[in-house]
Amino acid sequence: MPAAAAPDAPRRRGPRADGTDTRGAIRAAAAAEFAERGFASATIRSIAARADVDPALVHHYFGSKAALFRDVTQIPVDPAAGLPGVLAGPPEQLGMRLARHVLTLWEDPAFRTPLLTIVRSALVDPERARPLREYLESQLLPAVARELPGPDAPQRVVLAATQLIGIVLGRHVVGLAELTRPTVEQLAGRVAPTVQRYLDGTDQA
Amino acid sequence: MPAAAAPDAPRRRGPRADGTDTRGAIRAAAAAEFAERGFASATIRSIAARADVDPALVHHYFGSKAALFRDVTQIPVDPAAGLPGVLAGPPEQLGMRLARHVLTLWEDPAFRTPLLTIVRSALVDPERARPLREYLESQLLPAVARELPGPDAPQRVVLAATQLIGIVLGRHVVGLAELTRPTVEQLAGRVAPTVQRYLDGTDQA
Repeated sequence: MPAAAAPDAPRRRGPRADGTDTRGAIRAAAAAEFAERGFASATIRSIAARADVDPALVHHYFGSKAALFRDVTQIPVDPAAGLPGVLAGPPEQLGMRLARHVLTLWEDPAFRTPLLTIVRSALVDPERARPLREYLESQLLPAVARELPGPDAPQRVVLAATQLIGIVLGRHVVGLAELTRPTVEQLAGRVAPTVQRYLDGTDQA
Repeated sequence: MPAAAAPDAPRRRGPRADGTDTRGAIRAAAAAEFAERGFASATIRSIAARADVDPALVHHYFGSKAALFRDVTQIPVDPAAGLPGVLAGPPEQLGMRLARHVLTLWEDPAFRTPLLTIVRSALVDPERARPLREYLESQLLPAVARELPGPDAPQRVVLAATQLIGIVLGRHVVGLAELTRPTVEQLAGRVAPTVQRYLDGTDQA
């Protein structure tokens, strides 16, 4: 197993001498690592070891672990890319900005299709939800939660996410007329107060 | 095609003389009608015609169109069965009762598994979401909406449903820790104020 290579063993720094596809090897190693160890436990180093390449090469080709994850799962749009802009701006309108951001992302088939494929495979085998779950729990959700006050901020962000994903499911999978007829802007406006209350922690009765 | 039989043609009133499975024939006809015409357009009469049996026999074996739909889709638990009890009681606690009802239903694998199978097939082919969508839009959601005031009650019930289904997806499919650790009672309590606001029409900022 390549992972058993001694820490100081020299690793390839360039394209493989035997002409095999280094990017493809890294991608395959990453898919295996994410599947076996999950997103959180898999590391650039462990993926590099498995692919028998230098970690610097993984960074060179893919940038970050999150970017590699998106590549492997074929999600070409980074849902976190727009977050800084969403999180900036008046806090009292964060609910609307976040709702608009999430619902707009899901309008794009290039984002929606691979994501729904992951959900579908998670429905076949719950274990397959693990990379997505760990990506959400270790990357995307904390990126929002750390901007919010209160020890229950992580839970409140998850609740806000459930409201938005429920809309996505009803609009793009079940196709309920009440959710397909409105524009994204109308829908975002409709759920923004709920999302805002979760983010503010004022959602309790 | 059996459906082309003259309206006054005699239909079988008892088990088929040739010993075939009448229940099975009705079930197959119903599956075909629901798939081709959708839940709303399929009728006991059209299903009976397709199965070449008397409509009374469909009623006798399956009760109602909704019950036949659940039978065909292999959903053994009727989500509407508990609704009268949920809708009765103090209106200001309807959000909590509805949240508890929906989340409790989804704890039962006998309910959850066939439902998730339908969602999965809808993810493969959006057209397959049609029977579920029409069942929701013509039966389940109106059963709640007609108890509520205001012309936008149907939309508000859908929004309440999206909040609850988002929780279900996060708990039972993605498996987010913030949604799997709490009990149903805790989760219901957590989202009840949001559900209540949608049902009351006080969800806007």
